[in-house]
Amino acid sequence: MKLAMIGLGKMGLNLTYNLIDSGHQVVAFDLSEISMKQAEQYGATTTESISNLVQQLEAPRVIWMMVPAGNPTEKLVADLSEIIAPGDILIDGGNSNYKESIQRSQQLEAKGIHYLDVGTSGGMEGARDGACTMIGGNEKAFQHVEKLFADICVENGYLYTGKSGSGHFLKMVHNGIEYGMMQAIGEGFDILEKSEFDYDYEKVAKLWNNGSVIRSWLMELMEEAFKQDGHLDDIKGIVHSSGEGKWTVETALDLQVAAPVIAMSLMMRNRSLETDTFTGKVVAALRNQFGGHAVSKS
Amino acid sequence: MKLAMIGLGKMGLNLTYNLIDSGHQVVAFDLSEISMKQAEQYGATTTESISNLVQQLEAPRVIWMMVPAGNPTEKLVADLSEIIAPGDILIDGGNSNYKESIQRSQQLEAKGIHYLDVGTSGGMEGARDGACTMIGGNEKAFQHVEKLFADICVENGYLYTGKSGSGHFLKMVHNGIEYGMMQAIGEGFDILEKSEFDYDYEKVAKLWNNGSVIRSWLMELMEEAFKQDGHLDDIKGIVHSSGEGKWTVETALDLQVAAPVIAMSLMMRNRSLETDTFTGKVVAALRNQFGGHAVSKS
Repeated sequence: MKLAMIGLGKMGLNLTYNLIDSGHQVVAFDLSEISMKQAEQYGATTTESISNLVQQLEAPRVIWMMVPAGNPTEKLVADLSEIIAPGDILIDGGNSNYKESIQRSQQLEAKGIHYLDVGTSGGMEGARDGACTMIGGNEKAFQHVEKLFADICVENGYLYTGKSGSGHFLKMVHNGIEYGMMQAIGEGFDILEKSEFDYDYEKVAKLWNNGSVIRSWLMELMEEAFKQDGHLDDIKGIVHSSGEGKWTVETALDLQVAAPVIAMSLMMRNRSLETDTFTGKVVAALRNQFGGHAVSKS
Repeated sequence: MKLAMIGLGKMGLNLTYNLIDSGHQVVAFDLSEISMKQAEQYGATTTESISNLVQQLEAPRVIWMMVPAGNPTEKLVADLSEIIAPGDILIDGGNSNYKESIQRSQQLEAKGIHYLDVGTSGGMEGARDGACTMIGGNEKAFQHVEKLFADICVENGYLYTGKSGSGHFLKMVHNGIEYGMMQAIGEGFDILEKSEFDYDYEKVAKLWNNGSVIRSWLMELMEEAFKQDGHLDDIKGIVHSSGEGKWTVETALDLQVAAPVIAMSLMMRNRSLETDTFTGKVVAALRNQFGGHAVSKS
């Protein structure tokens, strides 16, 4: 199938390679010339503009967007919606908020354009060699492009999840679970690190990946991380987040679900961004006020 | 190797089968005659008392205990220590508190008896077909019985973790991580369940096990659970805990580790044991007192 890929970042470029490996023709576009050259060298056709890219496709056009969620996606969809035609299919493979995906889908369906909201998991490695995708939106449009997902995903690694928004919603919750699992793993190793025992963490992670209840891909990644740096001395414990954990917590609030572990995982990421906190200053000041407990001076 | 297995519950019986499959001779003992018969039918020798069991072994005796942690283990160790001899090796494969294991080890080493504290993971299935074990204690004693662990564990599924207590400590933290991972998975599916979308959870769990970041044995178990009962209608959301999560949190407190997710996972298990809470009554009463907010009457 001939299709376009817009956005050749870590995910988009690897997906492009993956699609080309499966025999698809990819017309690629990115603002970075380096990424464009990489895609070209692997066999993609590149193009200097979105409008030119659209001209190179035949109806119904299939355009895969792999650009940052929020404004970049919003602007791209707005631009594309002016120059594509009824029947065309837009695939949003980024981490868009599901509410925005529902809105976009409604606006585009009014013009006869189909918008598939696709959550993509598995990281760069998955994008390159076999991803996991959750696909919401118009079912006929999904069926038209199903082969693409079958080709770029691992076996049993794609699922049509129903109406618009359901793909990005499922990916959002997947990431919320991921936050919780990661924080639990982090806390566990922190307890080991402060304990009286002297564990080889690479061996521990390897052990836990062989027959234990907590064997998981995340633990495999820890085995690799500890192999590279036994006590993670070269890494600071600063953990950013890219939106989906926050949306999961916001959704839990909206739906009145008790999800304290996912919420706490996000809060601990927030805490990790600060070396000192105003919360801490307030609590230390109060202890000093009523109990005369010593405070550490800045 | 000829060894004894004391305790033929879910774990001990399966370990007995597993040991016999590997060609070991097992002298088995349990208070349940049914379990004894099952072990016998599989090829174990059974015995009517602990003292008789000890007589059937040759020095240095290897006695594997698979009994509940706490008093049952304490009593069994006390009884055995009266009738075994210097050089003998006691394997505690249960979920003993690591502090008790350290104490027992010291008391027994004073008599020349070696005590290995062994955390066993992988559930019944692991005990039967390939477990994951974490082994602390005297290194020479470990080497004497290493073949047993090599035989009953999956490949790379056992690790000598160092001094006494380190095996049970590692297993304790493993379980703490497990609590957090399980709670995160639970909360994620709860958000899906209360959402506007209509997911097939068996398919979701299966999808997430193929290429996603959160692929894990726990998610595989969820795939199986949802296959049996699509919305878990037949199960109440009551979650007991068997001690190790609590010890992990207590240890985090002792070591001043911030481990809110593991702690919260335990608290949510505690919450699940009650259909109503006094906390809830207090907060509802306060809202009523100051804000006139309606309360639900018992």
